[in-house]
Amino acid sequence: MGRMCLFLFLFLRFFFSSVATASVCSSKGLPLVRNLSEVPQSNFGRAGLSHITVAGSVLHGMKEVELWLQTFAPGTGTPIHRHSCEEVFIVLKGSGTLFLASSSDMQYPGKPQEFSIFSNSTFYIPINDAHQVWNTNENEDLQMLVVISRPPVKVFIYKDWFMPHIAAQLKLPYYWDEECFYPPKDEL
Amino acid sequence: MGRMCLFLFLFLRFFFSSVATASVCSSKGLPLVRNLSEVPQSNFGRAGLSHITVAGSVLHGMKEVELWLQTFAPGTGTPIHRHSCEEVFIVLKGSGTLFLASSSDMQYPGKPQEFSIFSNSTFYIPINDAHQVWNTNENEDLQMLVVISRPPVKVFIYKDWFMPHIAAQLKLPYYWDEECFYPPKDEL
Repeated sequence: MGRMCLFLFLFLRFFFSSVATASVCSSKGLPLVRNLSEVPQSNFGRAGLSHITVAGSVLHGMKEVELWLQTFAPGTGTPIHRHSCEEVFIVLKGSGTLFLASSSDMQYPGKPQEFSIFSNSTFYIPINDAHQVWNTNENEDLQMLVVISRPPVKVFIYKDWFMPHIAAQLKLPYYWDEECFYPPKDEL
Repeated sequence: MGRMCLFLFLFLRFFFSSVATASVCSSKGLPLVRNLSEVPQSNFGRAGLSHITVAGSVLHGMKEVELWLQTFAPGTGTPIHRHSCEEVFIVLKGSGTLFLASSSDMQYPGKPQEFSIFSNSTFYIPINDAHQVWNTNENEDLQMLVVISRPPVKVFIYKDWFMPHIAAQLKLPYYWDEECFYPPKDEL
């Protein structure tokens, strides 16, 4: 009887974990039109962040573009990072600062330029430029739509603006891709 | 004196038209952060449409993604069309209907499925599926953010849902790319 219970437990655990994985990591079964307020959001271990993958490579099988809806609480933002893809932002709510170091041809990013970003503004990140987006408004969340090409995103993270480009750490899969990311098969 | 005036007039006309063309058809000189309410919008000859190219291939030199902000007055929408790229919509305001014929492997689109779209919803268009987005709400504008891959968009337009796929008409450049589009050079 005890052994039967154990089998039953293991079976149910396997069954439900498979179902859960399938629903988070695949667009199969998802309705074509989705209500964004019903899409799961998470901070992925980063305080002050709320991230939704609106349409993603790892999660939904997108091949060429990926869209995120991100909210940063006051005093939070992205790491200093770079990536080799196009990226466009639209600020839906709040305001903040874009820090951008257009020096991918130098040895390290260096002191970044600062740009004010605000509700109903748009900006893009030149490919491979180190940058950081920060909610510098103490009173309001910063909500943005983010579009990237070449998903999934391959992010190189800097500890500070004077870390050499070659020392920046690749984080792949990125936070929101971790749960569903399967490395490409070795086809040799 | 009259001839001098004519020369001056022609010179000034040429000078200012060049400046105007440069500012519309190039991102050079544009600030990195732009206020969307100050970006020019147009209906491009289509009643009820307001279109802004937020970040575009022909206009701004984007290579892999393009973003539009579009508003459709009640009773207006897109033509029935298809394109060979990824496309994702986010509805910012209003509501409407997505008509979608998932029959790119048949001879013609056929009667489309209808999907309700609404504020804060998102949907994507499967590659090459004929579709039409329409503001079926009589009381409110339909405003959407649209993201495509592989810009500039190459649109095939159908007169109706029963026109054969091979008869659909390529419209390249598309309405908002017409002013600045230069066909690729023949490199033979």
